[in-house]
Amino acid sequence: MSRTAKTPEVPSIGQLDRAAGGLGRQLAQKLRQAIKEGDLQPGEELPSTRALAQSLGVARGTVLEAFEQLIAEGFLEAIRGGSTRVASSLTEIRPASGGARRTTASAKPLPLPSPAEAFAAIARQFLPLPPVPFAVSVPAGAAAPGEVWRRLGNQIRARGKGVPSSYSDPQGALPLRQAIAEYVRRSRSVHCDPSQIIVTAGTQQGLYLSCLTLLDSEDFAWVENPAYWGITAIMETLGPNGRMVRVPVDEEGLVVEEGLRLRPDARVAFVTPSHQYPLGMPLSMARRNALLNWARSNAAWVVEDDYDSELRYAGHPFPSLQGLDPDHVIYLGTFSKILFPSLRIGYAIVPQRLVEAFCGARTLLDRHPPSADQHVLAAFIAEGHLDRHIRRIRGVYAECRSQLSQILQDALPNDLAWLQPSDQGMHLVLWLAPGMDDQAIAIQAARTGVAVRPVSRMYATGSGRPGLILGLGAFPADQIADAARRLASIVTAAAAPKRRKSRS
Amino acid sequence: MSRTAKTPEVPSIGQLDRAAGGLGRQLAQKLRQAIKEGDLQPGEELPSTRALAQSLGVARGTVLEAFEQLIAEGFLEAIRGGSTRVASSLTEIRPASGGARRTTASAKPLPLPSPAEAFAAIARQFLPLPPVPFAVSVPAGAAAPGEVWRRLGNQIRARGKGVPSSYSDPQGALPLRQAIAEYVRRSRSVHCDPSQIIVTAGTQQGLYLSCLTLLDSEDFAWVENPAYWGITAIMETLGPNGRMVRVPVDEEGLVVEEGLRLRPDARVAFVTPSHQYPLGMPLSMARRNALLNWARSNAAWVVEDDYDSELRYAGHPFPSLQGLDPDHVIYLGTFSKILFPSLRIGYAIVPQRLVEAFCGARTLLDRHPPSADQHVLAAFIAEGHLDRHIRRIRGVYAECRSQLSQILQDALPNDLAWLQPSDQGMHLVLWLAPGMDDQAIAIQAARTGVAVRPVSRMYATGSGRPGLILGLGAFPADQIADAARRLASIVTAAAAPKRRKSRS
Repeated sequence: MSRTAKTPEVPSIGQLDRAAGGLGRQLAQKLRQAIKEGDLQPGEELPSTRALAQSLGVARGTVLEAFEQLIAEGFLEAIRGGSTRVASSLTEIRPASGGARRTTASAKPLPLPSPAEAFAAIARQFLPLPPVPFAVSVPAGAAAPGEVWRRLGNQIRARGKGVPSSYSDPQGALPLRQAIAEYVRRSRSVHCDPSQIIVTAGTQQGLYLSCLTLLDSEDFAWVENPAYWGITAIMETLGPNGRMVRVPVDEEGLVVEEGLRLRPDARVAFVTPSHQYPLGMPLSMARRNALLNWARSNAAWVVEDDYDSELRYAGHPFPSLQGLDPDHVIYLGTFSKILFPSLRIGYAIVPQRLVEAFCGARTLLDRHPPSADQHVLAAFIAEGHLDRHIRRIRGVYAECRSQLSQILQDALPNDLAWLQPSDQGMHLVLWLAPGMDDQAIAIQAARTGVAVRPVSRMYATGSGRPGLILGLGAFPADQIADAARRLASIVTAAAAPKRRKSRS
Repeated sequence: MSRTAKTPEVPSIGQLDRAAGGLGRQLAQKLRQAIKEGDLQPGEELPSTRALAQSLGVARGTVLEAFEQLIAEGFLEAIRGGSTRVASSLTEIRPASGGARRTTASAKPLPLPSPAEAFAAIARQFLPLPPVPFAVSVPAGAAAPGEVWRRLGNQIRARGKGVPSSYSDPQGALPLRQAIAEYVRRSRSVHCDPSQIIVTAGTQQGLYLSCLTLLDSEDFAWVENPAYWGITAIMETLGPNGRMVRVPVDEEGLVVEEGLRLRPDARVAFVTPSHQYPLGMPLSMARRNALLNWARSNAAWVVEDDYDSELRYAGHPFPSLQGLDPDHVIYLGTFSKILFPSLRIGYAIVPQRLVEAFCGARTLLDRHPPSADQHVLAAFIAEGHLDRHIRRIRGVYAECRSQLSQILQDALPNDLAWLQPSDQGMHLVLWLAPGMDDQAIAIQAARTGVAVRPVSRMYATGSGRPGLILGLGAFPADQIADAARRLASIVTAAAAPKRRKSRS
């Protein structure tokens, strides 16, 4: 193709939502829509990635990402000379769909149901981060369970356990529940027996099951401020907003007195007592007692989200709330953080009288957990591999943590950005100076291959402070250093106009 | 122990709920409670299984089952002489819990939240059936994917796909979505591309995602009468009962005109057009057109649950509703039936504009599907193993079906029980004479190791007819024959008193 060849028109793909992030995905979706609606015809050539990037004001990598995705899906095809066009094969596929579309020409336009709008917003907001620093829980290098997991899996599946089988117990496989009961007793002073354990698809499902089971439509729940997005998003979509009472967090964790003042009659409190999410402080012993006293005297429940308590770098942990009061506490644990997220196995430990209810709710959601990996995990725990793995990754994450802290402290002025003190967990919080836009910085960071989440989004509207959540990962040291420096320079640059303004 | 030793007291474990089934599980739960509450003390000996069975009026096998479960869980232990006692080790575990209990002595009693009651009832009602005839979809013998599945899995996991990884796309892995798109196009005339596919944890999750995404709290939905319990149970627990409009089914499937009369303004229709569940007839072409016309002119959605359309024994299938109108149809498929249920992988194929909403809802439920088996399944489909597997099990199920039909027809008088005609699917419906109690018969059958589901439960209250759902399975021929004869004799015996009465 000569350089003077006619540049194809940029299709009218409208605005991308920069605040939502995931620009590549958004662009792919817009292009799909344009093809579906006939705005882009089969065989039609697209603008070059450079031209399209320029006209949209995005990085060329974003356009490349969208094109690659659509080529993989068969919407686009690469042609000679490095150009891309709408796949010509689409003409063959379209008749049925096209026919239907013709008959619907006079039909009513199909409005998106209002829950669909809400869920679509969640999908845009919580796109998984790419596996680059500082995405959390990326089981790379030394943090991956590696060959032991694979070989043990092959053995278990060959031996007969974990082979294809029929519908089974919504509660999960007994050998795994036995292994979990023993593990949480040793590591977290959780008192339970296997009959109280419901194997879940991870903490998110544990939270969802708890909401379904414990909250009636008129009931209120305490939720920390700031909190894990997984619980606030459930509360916002499952019921009217009023059901969620945001209770502030201070250096001792959840301010129980504030909860008592706002909504003493709440039915459930959702807390992260080992390591407040995202801020990282443990709930103090006095607050633990206050919280359990409230639960006991108000016949309320406490949902204890213990998502990464295995990763302590100093000091002794408080015992679990569950161990202090097994009758009022629902304990949620997960293997996503310490083993790997793509396993999708966690657990809810519930008072005996709630077991059937959790089983029923699980049955409605997806019947039961897949069986094979439950048996592999049971053996992995029982044979001591999990303990060894945790000891190893504790060292890996401690190393990563100290490297990252050092670089950020050296590269960033103290009045611009500083680290939240914490002695455990798989992430750090980097606070930013008041007035800085953490969402914009997160988007900019993503463009340079650095994955961070803005802290302000974890707060109730209007109460947020700017900051960034940096996941620790077993990335090579030079990759961590690079990413940390890139992030530091983005933060510094973002502050520059403001600084200049305040000086003038 | 001498035969004259003092027989231990039968603990006061109250009444078992016979109608709910799962007596062994119920008994285990009562015993656990008694131990927890100190009614049974550590080291205390239990009555013999025979004595306990007699005093409760249940089969000895039921008591054995409960004891074995509790021994596995560590509540009970077997002692010499064949007796069983409360595990003495429980004394070591109890202090923390006991301590908490003392402090709660003056606390308010903890009432079960009302949603918990509803979910507990669901758990009792939908206990998975044991893997005996006639449980549905038991991947035994010739119907199991067998060694191919396992060896392919080992290869995929070794090659790098499906290895432990981080949080990923709620929509599922692209190679699997590509394989599914191609498979449903060939086999079901479903028109979609991989970007419209959401990998689910099975049909149940597809139904749940559809309800969450498409129905606002005031919206109505058409649900077949009778219908799959999975959809009616969701509708009953998620919203007020009024939201579900039961629409009758006749020999052409869903009576669309009746839906139009009852609730023309419904937002969604849930249907099983290939093979009505549980009755088995396909939705006629005229009704398909009427249903889609309604959807188009009312901006409504049709959820097409195509749970086992692969198993046709005669004739040509109708094309999917989705192929006729991809803009209004959400198509649900599953690998539970044709491959194996413990895999927990299915798919929802949705109009492009609903994709993000389904992804957001999935994110809230459990973030995303586990990754490893998605890659194994993608290769299983792409390499042609699925097609070969389906061809093989079609023969297996056809054989089982004809054997079972023959025995039941020979063993049962026509006026007492008769088979519903159907030429596809993985189950048969055996109708019972009016007035017979299909739930009681199902409970009795379970006691003799025969697993059936009562049909009357699939109907809206008051509109039911008695009948039994018999799943087809690749059990050995003699096992099928035995079970069929046992079932026939239970049905005959159940009818006997009535017959005598009507004669006298």
